[in-house]
Amino acid sequence: MTTHNAFYAQSGGVTAVINASACGVIETCRQYSDRIGKLYAGHNGIIGALTEDLIDTASESDEAIAALRYTPGGAFGSCRYKLKDIETHRSQYERLIEVFKAHDIRYFFYNGGGDSADTCLKISHLSDHMGYPLQAIHVPKTVDNDLPITDNSPGFGSVAKYIATSTRETALDIASMCSTSTKVFILEAMGRHAGWIAAAGALASEDGAGPPHMVLLPEVPFDRQRVMDHIDAAVRKEGYCVVVVSEGARYKDGTFLSDAGNTDAFGHRQLGGVSPTLAGMVKQDLGYKYHWAVADYLQRAARHLAAGVDVEQAWAVGRRAVECALEGKNAVMPAIRRDSDDPYRWSLFDAPLEEVANHEKFMPDDFIREDGYGISDAGRRYLNPLIQGEDFPPFENGLPKFARLKLERVPRKLAEYKL
Amino acid sequence: MTTHNAFYAQSGGVTAVINASACGVIETCRQYSDRIGKLYAGHNGIIGALTEDLIDTASESDEAIAALRYTPGGAFGSCRYKLKDIETHRSQYERLIEVFKAHDIRYFFYNGGGDSADTCLKISHLSDHMGYPLQAIHVPKTVDNDLPITDNSPGFGSVAKYIATSTRETALDIASMCSTSTKVFILEAMGRHAGWIAAAGALASEDGAGPPHMVLLPEVPFDRQRVMDHIDAAVRKEGYCVVVVSEGARYKDGTFLSDAGNTDAFGHRQLGGVSPTLAGMVKQDLGYKYHWAVADYLQRAARHLAAGVDVEQAWAVGRRAVECALEGKNAVMPAIRRDSDDPYRWSLFDAPLEEVANHEKFMPDDFIREDGYGISDAGRRYLNPLIQGEDFPPFENGLPKFARLKLERVPRKLAEYKL
Repeated sequence: MTTHNAFYAQSGGVTAVINASACGVIETCRQYSDRIGKLYAGHNGIIGALTEDLIDTASESDEAIAALRYTPGGAFGSCRYKLKDIETHRSQYERLIEVFKAHDIRYFFYNGGGDSADTCLKISHLSDHMGYPLQAIHVPKTVDNDLPITDNSPGFGSVAKYIATSTRETALDIASMCSTSTKVFILEAMGRHAGWIAAAGALASEDGAGPPHMVLLPEVPFDRQRVMDHIDAAVRKEGYCVVVVSEGARYKDGTFLSDAGNTDAFGHRQLGGVSPTLAGMVKQDLGYKYHWAVADYLQRAARHLAAGVDVEQAWAVGRRAVECALEGKNAVMPAIRRDSDDPYRWSLFDAPLEEVANHEKFMPDDFIREDGYGISDAGRRYLNPLIQGEDFPPFENGLPKFARLKLERVPRKLAEYKL
Repeated sequence: MTTHNAFYAQSGGVTAVINASACGVIETCRQYSDRIGKLYAGHNGIIGALTEDLIDTASESDEAIAALRYTPGGAFGSCRYKLKDIETHRSQYERLIEVFKAHDIRYFFYNGGGDSADTCLKISHLSDHMGYPLQAIHVPKTVDNDLPITDNSPGFGSVAKYIATSTRETALDIASMCSTSTKVFILEAMGRHAGWIAAAGALASEDGAGPPHMVLLPEVPFDRQRVMDHIDAAVRKEGYCVVVVSEGARYKDGTFLSDAGNTDAFGHRQLGGVSPTLAGMVKQDLGYKYHWAVADYLQRAARHLAAGVDVEQAWAVGRRAVECALEGKNAVMPAIRRDSDDPYRWSLFDAPLEEVANHEKFMPDDFIREDGYGISDAGRRYLNPLIQGEDFPPFENGLPKFARLKLERVPRKLAEYKL
């Protein structure tokens, strides 16, 4: 059987488990070596394809590839780079075809979120619009959980587990000190557009009672007076208040707190960060002693606390992507279907990329508690299965031991290309 | 044999393993029930003794006490409250004696850092100065690692492991995105007076090469130009720069960056946070895209990532404290002696509390790399053993399952007391 080569790349913000998807793709390609020849990884996403900066995954040992399953970050380099339309920027697509031809690449796997799905979709048009026989399969990934069609996005479950765990742990800390020290603690979670990650903080409480006392979502317009009243009530009742706030928290008019944060509680410009902005309000309006944390990249890189189910799903969508290619599919994305909540059961299906790209999934209203500051039972039923299972990386000398790849480059065949 | 009762309390900032010390104290007391009658825990540290707010540890099951070993925060409540001298505030000491007499308390275990050691020392004088037969034993605890005499402080190893792990994980994240996204990442670590915790970030690199590219310690005066040059050089050479900065980072004149941070890079007042202050300088002086994180309480509450050796030591100093009491000692603190670096071996000895209280241990100069921005081989030899071993808590339903105590109060025998 004639074999052709494949291309895999990582795109957009990385996650704790995007390399588990890489692992799924590579291990499955190796299994089908009678049908897929070489698997090249693009260095820094689509930029690697454009600049012919290709990594030969064949030089990596099976052990190194297996280690990708528990290695955070993007092992082959990721990028924030959006392709324009074929009509607007035809020369870029011609360049891609030139590179793909030169390296006999007929399978294209792109591992990313919504923007990357758009890139993958455009590339899936190469065969129809430009006559180059290519199958483009998108591999879903995003901590933001905002991809449509799929029940959840690989990457989200792990960050959700991190935020819920950190909330539960810090709540015990605050509770023990509140009589003479910090009374209000604010943890900022990622999620500029949708509140999924902050909402997961609510899982720290098993039954919705107790900390966190408040979750501030982008979906619920920020009302300073109501928020301060809620914090004050918690402090008066329980002695302390734990708040999880989404970086996307915003006022009714759409202004982000963190932008408004350019005028902080003192009316002075700030460097951003919703947590300190909110802390300033607590200081000014309530006068309580506060602490705040901004987990930032720590949350999406925390492979040491990944959700087992997230790792499995990340690997499985990588594997399924290769199977899709072998089944002759184009412009699809393996998506996760929820078959049952409890016990949680899931399976994969192939979603048309057309329906995935450029759509964002927001928290449904009925996942949000009536007062707007927590999650409903429906929200809990949805979120809870996604943080299940532990999948600790191996530790060596006290620290997680992650994959070290050789990242050997494929010799260039073409002239240099400037982006 | 006549038995008398004992008092245990937690004081100062809590850690991921202070409850492991509580566990050591309580389990050992239970073992010697022929000699120690009841063990009462003070609610909120010494305040619990003053206000006769005592928790009867006997109502807790063996399982609940065993679970303290893996529960962060201070299970009995902690406090920031310093006793004045016996001369200045004799009535407070008289009250303590009143409470101790009322509940036949003859053993006093106080679990805390430097300030708490001072409180414990003052109480150890009760028998000499005020004729009440009490033995006071201090149980060491502090994430800051600034207690003298002991080779290290229980609580530090776990926060060190957290910061080193988070640095290693986020460095992989930044490295994979730096070509088109964030180039400088700044992680703020605790440690207002000494740089121990930030220094532990350097362990993320096995050999001192690679991330973190820079550690900013309070012990090394902050020189903006030099720091910016160093960051710039790392970005130019490797494409990105990871900085771990101590919250105690300060200028030559002693001004904290975070206080100076009240004037941020834009000359405007800020809410504190060294990370955003430094990020502002990066923005202004270098123009690189940056991200910053402030782990705050997350780092000292992160029991899910505790160092195994830290948990063992925390438990052991608790146990030893009870043994000291049974041996008739007063005004001592079980301290850790390092018997060998590699393989790491340690043992306990009883340090005179007089030498512990009110002294701070700073990083020795020879632990700091010559350029001031990292750790030396000696520093690495010291720090590395302290983050060894994993001791994950049990997980249930996707999250760490922590102890839940009944915290039953001992009936009051005395009139109310106002602090």
